[in-house]
Amino acid sequence: MPAAARRNEQSRRAILDAALALLAETDYAKVTIEAIAARAGVGKQTIYRWWRRKGEVVLEALTRQQTPVVLPDSGDLEADLRELVRATVAEFADPRLSATTRALTVEMLSDDDLAGQVRDRLLRPQLEAVRDRLAAARERGQIRTGADLDVAVELIFGPIFHRWQLRTGPLTEEYADALVDHVLAAVRP
Amino acid sequence: MPAAARRNEQSRRAILDAALALLAETDYAKVTIEAIAARAGVGKQTIYRWWRRKGEVVLEALTRQQTPVVLPDSGDLEADLRELVRATVAEFADPRLSATTRALTVEMLSDDDLAGQVRDRLLRPQLEAVRDRLAAARERGQIRTGADLDVAVELIFGPIFHRWQLRTGPLTEEYADALVDHVLAAVRP
Repeated sequence: MPAAARRNEQSRRAILDAALALLAETDYAKVTIEAIAARAGVGKQTIYRWWRRKGEVVLEALTRQQTPVVLPDSGDLEADLRELVRATVAEFADPRLSATTRALTVEMLSDDDLAGQVRDRLLRPQLEAVRDRLAAARERGQIRTGADLDVAVELIFGPIFHRWQLRTGPLTEEYADALVDHVLAAVRP
Repeated sequence: MPAAARRNEQSRRAILDAALALLAETDYAKVTIEAIAARAGVGKQTIYRWWRRKGEVVLEALTRQQTPVVLPDSGDLEADLRELVRATVAEFADPRLSATTRALTVEMLSDDDLAGQVRDRLLRPQLEAVRDRLAAARERGQIRTGADLDVAVELIFGPIFHRWQLRTGPLTEEYADALVDHVLAAVRP
């Protein structure tokens, strides 16, 4: 790698690390381009060379941080779904993670291009991992053949997202378990 | 009613009517306090006397416009749910309505107080009307006694909201019908 490319790569990494560190430490409103630049030890212009706005930096940082999504497959669909849904509900109930997701949602709603990127890079891999897990269960006869797996995935995440965003009810383990019971009833043979 | 109170009431009504007219005609971004005031023939200060920000004016206008939510009860749960879900999906698929909902969602995510108002005044009555319809069905034995009606309501609206907001799939009548099939399977005895 030529020296200039290596320096670029180092700057990019410093910026993304700075964004992640700030996200973990402070409110999203305080994670500004200025704050990220200062923390990374680069000028603001360096950030704007690669990203149009804060939301894009945060998306790339979160995407890079994301480990490949592989769902548990113990063979027991109910146990695996319970684990997934409890973890998802706990994530949305966590104030810090919730604040980041909320902020990213605002940015998505006001920027179609960013919305597409968040969907395709951050969200789609997770939804597809769940879909794959359900497809495996269907092959084993644990899910009825007529079940629509895209609808099934949304039956899992849609209610959590709705409850979280509109704050219509508690995000507890009891809620997670009740949701799993209803989703399973919807797709069982 | 004293003359001053009557004038106040006339101004309020003119402002809310102006907000609704602008919402129907133009992009949400152009529905500003200035535009509402101009259309209503009042000064901006008159609006700020009663509302802190645009989102609150829009919420009150939408709430006032909303007819009391009474769901069809033909006795046929499947037919009634199909009608409800098709209408809801069509509403989210409509670009103009969708733009207003999207904008109101952004305002909710950035203002906790407004979020509570939208939930309690605009949303809760709709969710409760659906819950009541499901409760009637449960009394008739069309829904299993163990079904959680709050979860059931979210199984209906959560997936639509998720798909609409994250744009992960088409909002069609076929989708509406598939969703109803899965929701019914989740709650049937």
